[in-house]
Amino acid sequence: MTQRLSSWVTSANSADTEFPLNNLPYGVFTGAGRTAHCGVAIGDQVLDVTAAEAADLLQLGQRNVFAGGSWNAFMALDEWSQFRSYLIDALSEGSPAQTQLQAHLVSQSDLQMLMPFTVTEFTDFYAGRHHATNVGTMFRGAENALPPNWLHIPIGYNGRASSVVVSGTNITRPFGQLKGPDDEFPRFAPSARFDLELEMGAIVGKPSSDRISVDQADDNIFGYVLLNDWSARDIQAWEYQPLGPFQAKATATTISPWIVTKEALEPFRVNTPAREFTLLEHLKDTGPMLYDIQLSVVHTAPDGTETTITNTNYKNMYYSAAQQLAHHTSSGCPMRVGDLLGSGTISGELKESRGSMLELSWGGKEPLTLSNGQSRSFLEDGDQITLVGAAIQTDYRIGFGVCTGKIVPSNTTT
Amino acid sequence: MTQRLSSWVTSANSADTEFPLNNLPYGVFTGAGRTAHCGVAIGDQVLDVTAAEAADLLQLGQRNVFAGGSWNAFMALDEWSQFRSYLIDALSEGSPAQTQLQAHLVSQSDLQMLMPFTVTEFTDFYAGRHHATNVGTMFRGAENALPPNWLHIPIGYNGRASSVVVSGTNITRPFGQLKGPDDEFPRFAPSARFDLELEMGAIVGKPSSDRISVDQADDNIFGYVLLNDWSARDIQAWEYQPLGPFQAKATATTISPWIVTKEALEPFRVNTPAREFTLLEHLKDTGPMLYDIQLSVVHTAPDGTETTITNTNYKNMYYSAAQQLAHHTSSGCPMRVGDLLGSGTISGELKESRGSMLELSWGGKEPLTLSNGQSRSFLEDGDQITLVGAAIQTDYRIGFGVCTGKIVPSNTTT
Repeated sequence: MTQRLSSWVTSANSADTEFPLNNLPYGVFTGAGRTAHCGVAIGDQVLDVTAAEAADLLQLGQRNVFAGGSWNAFMALDEWSQFRSYLIDALSEGSPAQTQLQAHLVSQSDLQMLMPFTVTEFTDFYAGRHHATNVGTMFRGAENALPPNWLHIPIGYNGRASSVVVSGTNITRPFGQLKGPDDEFPRFAPSARFDLELEMGAIVGKPSSDRISVDQADDNIFGYVLLNDWSARDIQAWEYQPLGPFQAKATATTISPWIVTKEALEPFRVNTPAREFTLLEHLKDTGPMLYDIQLSVVHTAPDGTETTITNTNYKNMYYSAAQQLAHHTSSGCPMRVGDLLGSGTISGELKESRGSMLELSWGGKEPLTLSNGQSRSFLEDGDQITLVGAAIQTDYRIGFGVCTGKIVPSNTTT
Repeated sequence: MTQRLSSWVTSANSADTEFPLNNLPYGVFTGAGRTAHCGVAIGDQVLDVTAAEAADLLQLGQRNVFAGGSWNAFMALDEWSQFRSYLIDALSEGSPAQTQLQAHLVSQSDLQMLMPFTVTEFTDFYAGRHHATNVGTMFRGAENALPPNWLHIPIGYNGRASSVVVSGTNITRPFGQLKGPDDEFPRFAPSARFDLELEMGAIVGKPSSDRISVDQADDNIFGYVLLNDWSARDIQAWEYQPLGPFQAKATATTISPWIVTKEALEPFRVNTPAREFTLLEHLKDTGPMLYDIQLSVVHTAPDGTETTITNTNYKNMYYSAAQQLAHHTSSGCPMRVGDLLGSGTISGELKESRGSMLELSWGGKEPLTLSNGQSRSFLEDGDQITLVGAAIQTDYRIGFGVCTGKIVPSNTTT
């Protein structure tokens, strides 16, 4: 499916839409008289599948799959492919389903997007080699940049599912314990080194109760979102030894409103990079495991000035989401429908392809210059960060919708 | 309430019961013709509150609170004290409720206990000073035993809620990436240094969306369980830098079947230890924050030989659960009903009060001798570990039921 498919929803046939018939990502929306309905993006419209299901138009083996206002119930069904095939048929140019489905289209511009699924647990990885090398160099010197385990294990830590929010949610600058290298004691104050992390999130759609292979892990992944793992570098620096980041990563993680299915991304599969050490059997590549997805980060200053601060690609990862998931189950850890796996920060090789302010400003030593002439080492109140992603074929593109959040000042009255 | 209360359930009046009328812990059971009913332990009986609610005998402001077979719905109500008062009245000697409630008593010996609540997210702390000092000494030497942040922050990391199981569940020895100091490459094999961690778990019963004070945190804690955070030391040693423990702690965490309410523990409050550094305002003690709870660990060898391998007390913690919860919210991290906070390993000052095999055998250098003459550095297949806890007044004791799990061999066929 590397050709653009034609839909009777004419806006889906435009060359620059994020949502051609080839995409069909899944979200949840409110607006146009609906509250928390499941929807499928097509061109500039959304097909209200909660309403279509209630009208008995969908061909699912179960009822009320979309009544709960989240995609978890659908993920738990074994009908991912069938439903996507049904949607492609029904929305194709000339489909006899057009008359009935047309009544359930709503314009995206009338809607507010909600969380597309309930996050069961959230795990964040550290699987971008350029990012790990950059951060390691800053903290431990170039000689010891990559920890000894890094080329053998997709390093990850458990994050906080309760803090995952959908694009558009304001992000309150966190308080935390801070202690500079010259301070005698720590103090409790707003983070002064608040940062973004450009990531992709993989959503686990099938449960597992014991360890699984990389191929099984790939089968269990439902789809992908853009993900910004907001990070307070100063909180992290003081808290993270010996048990890893905790409150530094617990304020918020923003995801894009649309889940792009693994099936929609199939034409974009690419190989992982050459391996320095052969991976152990349970983590070995079993085919092209990454995706060619162009990613960028746009910084919007309080005066409205936009600056694209990075351009990179998901194919820069060292470990795929399937390898991360296989590793995640290696100890027997049970996985559940709705588990979210952050890829780790996706930095490219070049300075302008780094996925965090920490790297872009090299720990604050080389502040970025914005388009309005201001400089930034980390994020200031009123700054807005927007992640954008696109998988691009000759005549169509697959998008995720924007993943955006604005920094608002710390709450000092709590 | 430091006197034993008398109940018409006569077994609750015996001096050695774990479940006098003063306790009334909450659990979920199957058996005696019921499936996943909520129950309250009293003497050697359980009051089936799911059945009592269905018979309209309970005085709750809402219906079907206990129909779901977990205590989460009850936690979400603002009726913790009223319900406990009702139960104490109704189960007291001479209560007119006796006739009606008697029909809903079932004998504990007929029941199998299930998870008492749904764990929303699980956080594990590292807040026992003796444990942190012991582990730090082994890994970094006595001079650098406590990390610099340790006396200022209750260090914690996010664990894996999906891996929390109820007492009695077998624990499968995990596989993991292992690399000894002299190995050139890691290998994937069953953990050879599988361990227990003696902890208490605090259950968050009220949600919060921004940072909260220590007093508010204390109010939000519903109750406590015994908790064994099974740990694969060899997996941890290779994986934990730089982002903390991950698969080493993801196999299983066992909790006791009964939630002892905070109210039942009120008579046992004791002060936290003297502070070396004044805690920052948002973490300061606001009264006696710990509990005097005697804890022990019993090792049962495959031949049935029992050895009590440690005796310690929850009052050995440096930080209370309320301080841990306040810290957990400091970055704005949202907390939800059913969040579980592990205290961290509760080691005392003496060698025989250490809460893990790692400490008891000093990293394997000083193996323990069991009652049958065998020695152990870590746990072997067929070993069973049982945590026991009791808060003791002159004429009654508050127990949690046992928290037990047996190690079964790794699954090599997956």
